[in-house]
Amino acid sequence: MTKNIAIIGASGYTGAELIRLIATHPDLEIAALAANSKAGQRMDQVFPHLRHLDLPKLVTWEEIDFSAIDLCFCALPHKTSQEVIRELPKHLKIVDLSADFRLRDPEAYAKWYGNPHAATEMQKEAVYGLTEFYRDEITAARLVAGTGCNAATGQYMIRPLISAGVIGLDDIILDLKCGVSGAGRSLKENLLHAELSEGTNAYSVGGTHRHLGEFDQEFSTLAGRDVRVQFTPHLLPMNRGILATAYVTGAPDEVHGALCDAYADEPFIIPLPFGETPSTHHVRGSNFCHVGVTGDRIGGRSIVVAALDNLTKGSSGQALQNANLMLGLPETQGLMLAPCFP
Amino acid sequence: MTKNIAIIGASGYTGAELIRLIATHPDLEIAALAANSKAGQRMDQVFPHLRHLDLPKLVTWEEIDFSAIDLCFCALPHKTSQEVIRELPKHLKIVDLSADFRLRDPEAYAKWYGNPHAATEMQKEAVYGLTEFYRDEITAARLVAGTGCNAATGQYMIRPLISAGVIGLDDIILDLKCGVSGAGRSLKENLLHAELSEGTNAYSVGGTHRHLGEFDQEFSTLAGRDVRVQFTPHLLPMNRGILATAYVTGAPDEVHGALCDAYADEPFIIPLPFGETPSTHHVRGSNFCHVGVTGDRIGGRSIVVAALDNLTKGSSGQALQNANLMLGLPETQGLMLAPCFP
Amino acid sequence: MTKNIAIIGASGYTGAELIRLIATHPDLEIAALAANSKAGQRMDQVFPHLRHLDLPKLVTWEEIDFSAIDLCFCALPHKTSQEVIRELPKHLKIVDLSADFRLRDPEAYAKWYGNPHAATEMQKEAVYGLTEFYRDEITAARLVAGTGCNAATGQYMIRPLISAGVIGLDDIILDLKCGVSGAGRSLKENLLHAELSEGTNAYSVGGTHRHLGEFDQEFSTLAGRDVRVQFTPHLLPMNRGILATAYVTGAPDEVHGALCDAYADEPFIIPLPFGETPSTHHVRGSNFCHVGVTGDRIGGRSIVVAALDNLTKGSSGQALQNANLMLGLPETQGLMLAPCFP
Amino acid sequence: MTKNIAIIGASGYTGAELIRLIATHPDLEIAALAANSKAGQRMDQVFPHLRHLDLPKLVTWEEIDFSAIDLCFCALPHKTSQEVIRELPKHLKIVDLSADFRLRDPEAYAKWYGNPHAATEMQKEAVYGLTEFYRDEITAARLVAGTGCNAATGQYMIRPLISAGVIGLDDIILDLKCGVSGAGRSLKENLLHAELSEGTNAYSVGGTHRHLGEFDQEFSTLAGRDVRVQFTPHLLPMNRGILATAYVTGAPDEVHGALCDAYADEPFIIPLPFGETPSTHHVRGSNFCHVGVTGDRIGGRSIVVAALDNLTKGSSGQALQNANLMLGLPETQGLMLAPCFP
Repeated sequence: MTKNIAIIGASGYTGAELIRLIATHPDLEIAALAANSKAGQRMDQVFPHLRHLDLPKLVTWEEIDFSAIDLCFCALPHKTSQEVIRELPKHLKIVDLSADFRLRDPEAYAKWYGNPHAATEMQKEAVYGLTEFYRDEITAARLVAGTGCNAATGQYMIRPLISAGVIGLDDIILDLKCGVSGAGRSLKENLLHAELSEGTNAYSVGGTHRHLGEFDQEFSTLAGRDVRVQFTPHLLPMNRGILATAYVTGAPDEVHGALCDAYADEPFIIPLPFGETPSTHHVRGSNFCHVGVTGDRIGGRSIVVAALDNLTKGSSGQALQNANLMLGLPETQGLMLAPCFP
Repeated sequence: MTKNIAIIGASGYTGAELIRLIATHPDLEIAALAANSKAGQRMDQVFPHLRHLDLPKLVTWEEIDFSAIDLCFCALPHKTSQEVIRELPKHLKIVDLSADFRLRDPEAYAKWYGNPHAATEMQKEAVYGLTEFYRDEITAARLVAGTGCNAATGQYMIRPLISAGVIGLDDIILDLKCGVSGAGRSLKENLLHAELSEGTNAYSVGGTHRHLGEFDQEFSTLAGRDVRVQFTPHLLPMNRGILATAYVTGAPDEVHGALCDAYADEPFIIPLPFGETPSTHHVRGSNFCHVGVTGDRIGGRSIVVAALDNLTKGSSGQALQNANLMLGLPETQGLMLAPCFP
Repeated sequence: MTKNIAIIGASGYTGAELIRLIATHPDLEIAALAANSKAGQRMDQVFPHLRHLDLPKLVTWEEIDFSAIDLCFCALPHKTSQEVIRELPKHLKIVDLSADFRLRDPEAYAKWYGNPHAATEMQKEAVYGLTEFYRDEITAARLVAGTGCNAATGQYMIRPLISAGVIGLDDIILDLKCGVSGAGRSLKENLLHAELSEGTNAYSVGGTHRHLGEFDQEFSTLAGRDVRVQFTPHLLPMNRGILATAYVTGAPDEVHGALCDAYADEPFIIPLPFGETPSTHHVRGSNFCHVGVTGDRIGGRSIVVAALDNLTKGSSGQALQNANLMLGLPETQGLMLAPCFP
Repeated sequence: MTKNIAIIGASGYTGAELIRLIATHPDLEIAALAANSKAGQRMDQVFPHLRHLDLPKLVTWEEIDFSAIDLCFCALPHKTSQEVIRELPKHLKIVDLSADFRLRDPEAYAKWYGNPHAATEMQKEAVYGLTEFYRDEITAARLVAGTGCNAATGQYMIRPLISAGVIGLDDIILDLKCGVSGAGRSLKENLLHAELSEGTNAYSVGGTHRHLGEFDQEFSTLAGRDVRVQFTPHLLPMNRGILATAYVTGAPDEVHGALCDAYADEPFIIPLPFGETPSTHHVRGSNFCHVGVTGDRIGGRSIVVAALDNLTKGSSGQALQNANLMLGLPETQGLMLAPCFP
């Protein structure tokens, strides 16, 4: 029951991560790889670490024969993604890794991304790809929108707490530390090794990061009222990994209990024993997310810390998990790789 | 007017940092270096980067002739420090870099450090070494207690806000990211490169970090009431640097104004223009502390971010700044080294 | 046809790497894990990144019931390893990852390791574990000695050149750069992040590194005469990876040809097109070894550069490859994980 | 006796490093800073770590009034540098940090840099800036050409050995490991943190690196015959530092003796005791160069290892050292900063 896969946008980090994961997936076959700016090149020229694989040459996405494709991953930059997906065959199953179909409200999209949406009808159709919370919809979906990597991390920590009603909704603070691969393979001065290694800084401070659009949409829907969190990301000198520290009001044991209940049967989200905290070292290269809870010396406050790999669970691993569901394959197929430590 | 200096505990990172700074100080002469576990060795065996300097051999502190010493830096581990300082000549000016004389209350000391204090009378005499806020007392002091590096960072952000009355006192959250040299040259598994590089984790979560003792003492004194902050440190894969992110309630312009007013004449504490945030990259190896303020999309909330080098402004640079005052030298002497970037 | 596996020395990096690889191996079951110093602990306490696996508790090796074990990996420090292996049941298949059975000559062992060998009869029995060159012997062996990680790298570059007679034997220079995990999880000052990151140094300079014993044995046997190479390792601020640069006299096209011929059918050793050079980035976490050849502006000189992951192809991956052969399983089983980049 | 300084090309790393060093130089005043692409900006916008300094705004170099300038540092890319320097006032003292005036032979320049030289008469006038070996010429020079950072490192190791006649000239091999700041602040994919950290690779393999032009010129001149070395650079995941390992034929004690003799009175070049090897950690941020020698188990071979900071002793520190000489100031002025470790 091999399924044929295409990847559009195969020359970026999330595209490469998809290929890394699919390389040991027993039921998926990579039938086409597109990257318009590098069409004609071999993948080992773009990503020499994939040299051992027998992969199709890079083509433009327009050259792909989609009639033989069961599912297409779209790993393009946002805005480009919607313009391409709009043109793809209507029957094709699609997992989009960009930001383009995460927000259901065209106005919210326009506000956070600065341009009107070019495929508003598909925006409505798309299912939000946070697997553990949209499993049934994803299984039935044609178009799934991969979540933001920061947005996924924050939701794994906070959603069960909102659902269980164990925290206050007006003073949620999310301080997030992320590795540089989340910024993609882009040539920006602040992403150079010489600028980034051995130091750290906050960015998008003050409630301006785009993933807030996802938090607002999801948390408000869940709570049945407006929820606005404070969210500050920091760039760390590491390639992979997100560590998020959430400061909430709520009884620590109830907070821990709500997370343990929510994830009791989940294969990838692992609540730690009360009082333990996770490390990005321990999820690197894997699809696992570790979540820990501690109390504070100040009563009624809880600290929740979560760790995941932004390229895997935060992006391409999530995409593959969703694709498995959409294709009727076991959800964990190809995703049980152990973290790479040290 | 050369002054003779001794350093006890010269084989640790703060000892080495003192020597690095004093190396270009025009008025200080290193007359004695002690490190009991390495007595008899040359400094270039312990720290080859100091090879170009003509330094005295390491001796035990008991071997030092203090009659010729104007000021002694004590860079020993806490507990050991109080036991040694108790035995030093009573006339000797001392800057202690350990935690031993930071807390004025013997009970608070015992609570945070787990042992009764062995020199309670000197604990009372000691002046808290946060130069910008205890300048006069330090100038007149015989024994100055260097602050914790995290404690210094947090106070540079919060003290002026408490003094100016521009923030709420019951919901101050301090999320701190620090480099590994703060843990010293100790052989611990979690400090190994293989365990630490390329990842991050929180530690001392839940209001258990010892520097909270300093925050409690200083903020409560300042506010004239009990103030308890939430403080969570994170270990980052970098050698030097602390970045602290404070979440406070208060009008952003007032918060920024209070910091600008407080530091208008300070040589080392530099408030950034409103809306800019600092980076540890830009203070590495220097005695400067950069402080930035932004608002949030949620009204009435402010985010303050500060960056300093834990070994310099957070420890040995602060110690030298205090020593300059105690010796009647210009406060900035030897401390105007520009940060080392990249 | 599931085979039962034991790992003795499971609390070190090579033990953890074995578990990481076996985690996705379809035919191996981890039946016992031993680590005498941590007996009684759970593996997630020692290595939290393995938390998602259902692993046996750590025991002492004496507690293992070997009657149900098909093959035992021994990942102990050298010297301890021979003392333990000597006591194991005589029928048990063993892959030793230590240095104890690499050298066939007891005198050579004593010279390089400083102590007489405690199991000289087994030393004779052991097969040298460089899979690609000892495949038949390994398949039939009971005891296989894993090679040194540096020794493996150097041999992948040089053996085919000696066999093909395309290089001079008296001026082979091997300059090697290795990551820190090769030194294991040992508490040494020079392995601390603060000492190691952002810098590099040579070590064991001047023909003193123990892996020279392996080079001498293997290259001399192959050449039918004494061959002594110059070998200088350097410690780099990275966790995984060995990059070796060999300077040899010989025609570049012949050197490249000899390597391409030797590895034409090998699944893991990948010669690059002439003139390309490999990077450790592109083999990280995988069992692949990339080898490149270039000429020099000086005629008759060739530069060979190889990259592999010291923990995988240089140690635990090699061990698993050998175990597959010894157990009659497909050689590449569990080893086709793509490198983890970035 | 304050001297007025201009820096053209102040927005790159070598420009910033010059400012860092001059910041604590007692006799130099920065009177003008040029960076044509960023003219109009303040330096703290380009390099926030220089925020504490009172620096002139960036202008175009054409805007500088050179009548008040005593010496101009030119830190432009090669080719641009010669075009600008050609237009500067003829009386102006200039230290060029680019590659443009290093090679005295126009044909050699054209061969290594791919374009004819645009200022051949100045090429003849320029003095090669390796201070320790051209001290008198530099003192008297109007135009000094800063050396390549790799070229400087290799020459500190090899020149005294050629002069003393203690090594063979036909088999010198130089394996060099360098940090990323040597590549400047350029937006190239391979310089991104995600591509560079945690791994290493060789580059410009096979005798193609441009610094070979300098080695050829200098070593051949010194030896009175053609000398061609093999030179292979490797890119390491660190920001500052060059470690070079030279493999030469020659008696180790004679090699060590020749280096000790050559540098006995040098303030910045420090030969280590025989058998010790240097580390880039121990020179970071300083103008020192450590050089070590060991023998090999193979008689008659020596290994020389040197470490320096490419931005300081390899570039801007060297430039300042030369400027001091040209301005009649003490050679070590502003350059005695101790290395920044850890």
